[in-house]
Amino acid sequence: MSVDGSRGLEFIDSNMGKKPLFLCTISYTGTSEIPGLTLAGSNPEVVKFTPAADAELLYYRQCKSIPGVPATPDGVPTPALITLSALKLATIPFFILDAGSAVKPRAPYISVGLQSLAKNITTGHAMELKDVKQVFEYAKLLGRNLSYLCDYLVLGESIPAGTTTASAVLSALGIDARGKVSSSMTDNPHQLKDHVVEQSLKAARISIDKLTADPLLAISKVGDPMIATVAGLVIGAAGKAPIILAGGTQMTAVAAVVSILDARALENVVLSTTPYVTEDPKSDLSWLLKQSGDIPVLAADPGLARSSIIGLQPYGKGLVKEGVGAGGSCLASMLRSSGKITTTDILNEVERSYHEIIGT
Amino acid sequence: MSVDGSRGLEFIDSNMGKKPLFLCTISYTGTSEIPGLTLAGSNPEVVKFTPAADAELLYYRQCKSIPGVPATPDGVPTPALITLSALKLATIPFFILDAGSAVKPRAPYISVGLQSLAKNITTGHAMELKDVKQVFEYAKLLGRNLSYLCDYLVLGESIPAGTTTASAVLSALGIDARGKVSSSMTDNPHQLKDHVVEQSLKAARISIDKLTADPLLAISKVGDPMIATVAGLVIGAAGKAPIILAGGTQMTAVAAVVSILDARALENVVLSTTPYVTEDPKSDLSWLLKQSGDIPVLAADPGLARSSIIGLQPYGKGLVKEGVGAGGSCLASMLRSSGKITTTDILNEVERSYHEIIGT
Repeated sequence: MSVDGSRGLEFIDSNMGKKPLFLCTISYTGTSEIPGLTLAGSNPEVVKFTPAADAELLYYRQCKSIPGVPATPDGVPTPALITLSALKLATIPFFILDAGSAVKPRAPYISVGLQSLAKNITTGHAMELKDVKQVFEYAKLLGRNLSYLCDYLVLGESIPAGTTTASAVLSALGIDARGKVSSSMTDNPHQLKDHVVEQSLKAARISIDKLTADPLLAISKVGDPMIATVAGLVIGAAGKAPIILAGGTQMTAVAAVVSILDARALENVVLSTTPYVTEDPKSDLSWLLKQSGDIPVLAADPGLARSSIIGLQPYGKGLVKEGVGAGGSCLASMLRSSGKITTTDILNEVERSYHEIIGT
Repeated sequence: MSVDGSRGLEFIDSNMGKKPLFLCTISYTGTSEIPGLTLAGSNPEVVKFTPAADAELLYYRQCKSIPGVPATPDGVPTPALITLSALKLATIPFFILDAGSAVKPRAPYISVGLQSLAKNITTGHAMELKDVKQVFEYAKLLGRNLSYLCDYLVLGESIPAGTTTASAVLSALGIDARGKVSSSMTDNPHQLKDHVVEQSLKAARISIDKLTADPLLAISKVGDPMIATVAGLVIGAAGKAPIILAGGTQMTAVAAVVSILDARALENVVLSTTPYVTEDPKSDLSWLLKQSGDIPVLAADPGLARSSIIGLQPYGKGLVKEGVGAGGSCLASMLRSSGKITTTDILNEVERSYHEIIGT
């Protein structure tokens, strides 16, 4: 586990042995259909199935909406494999929250009632503002209720192309995220992303001043439903339950939105991800966090860099990196067991899951 | 509070001060469109809005899908008023679970993925068997996860005409429920209900022997999605969390289904309702329970018989009686507060809610 500073240590201290609840928000943005932005699927046609398939994997240790499991075109499996292993080791309960996913999971899920699909942000009009407000308000109600049911909340996500929409929201909020967000690829396509963001902000035809004053408006122009939902969950649960934002650079967009709407809600929030994100030379999580929410980062290592399984080793080389709350669920697993569950235990369990679910 | 026997007392003892989670399953059956079966709505057109409106009332203390609140044609308000008061007094967290309601609530809810509406049982084919199995399996998964999040579960329902479908399922399972189920009316329309049940079983064209061996098949012929869902929740949570079936005679159909599929799952289950049901001369909850699941009954009194509000007094005369987990949520409120919250406190809070929400 790697921790930056005293607030991170405090979070660990005060939540050691406590009971987490893991929540994975699955969502969709039309932005994922731009070629070259995401590897969250073996080919572009299946990308929209990935969030539902991730959810099914957590419930059933197999997918129902697709054959096999979500993977990159090279066959590197979804980080849901890490998440399900970490949750299992520490018997952590979880929910799936559907925020406008294109395919609904064949499993139970919480709905925030979003009926339409979020559009490609290059339209400059990703979502109806009333829909953004609705999912945000519903998520606040949920966050409040969920905060009574656990000692702390772990909020993950599965939304292909989510780093691009996050970059656009950060930019809309005055944070120059160019070249800073992470990617499921080893070779982060920053140029393409920056171009998409620039195009989106231009198409939105609205001044950055107006957007920084109204982050829900910014989401409606160039964001995605995941950001609105997780921001709502944080604000709803704030003051009642500590929160782990379980994700990479996407979560800095959430932190930025919360910080504008209700800065105090970030007081007991940390971001937790994998070392594949925190040590990524091609993105800058820590800079983004300083600009967006200034919350501590805790990296939890699932150990895949030293896996004997060829299909898992690419994580150590910066492929996939994070998703489905993988890093945060590892941290929660370690915390829940008061440190008894280690990186080696998680790696072993991920390898067992790999053999069981994917084969040899 | 009125308790029948030692197992009920044991349940109270062991859950005193503990943390409940309330879950209200909202659902629909085409049976509710048969004139004269239900008073859960001021007129037949709005009956299908009642479950969604009940859910909204719990979240917002006002409805969004209808003006005002659900009420009988005479203006006696929904038992959701009791539930929201009891939940508020003891700060009990809750979820809405949608099991095929005709109108979705304008609030967050958990989905078990049921897309189609359950038909009038007189067709003899209320639901696709695969749909019954799906909601049952999803509810089991949910029940297991929910059982980790609380000390005990309180399972309520809102489904107009649910006592008729319950009666049909009980009959299909070999329990002669004729003249025994409760009603939202003072004048229980037993003749009409018995006729509907008889017609339904005839239309199902299948022997009772086959149905008693397969309660999910029985539900698919003459039942409703609420029964399949709550049965799944009970079986999923069994062995992990104690359960209060928060409802009247409808819950005996749930008990009957669980008792056939997994009798041990009933070991730590009680039924809790209002005295308007347990003391109803026109139905026989205790007999139905003996036949179905033999679980203890705990009646919790919201005190409406002695309300000074004319609109609430009819509860004491047997109108409405129960619904939205009213009785069970009163019990949970009393238990949560280790007995500090009494019938008088609940009555006072219901009256405050009445004045705030409905007016004078």
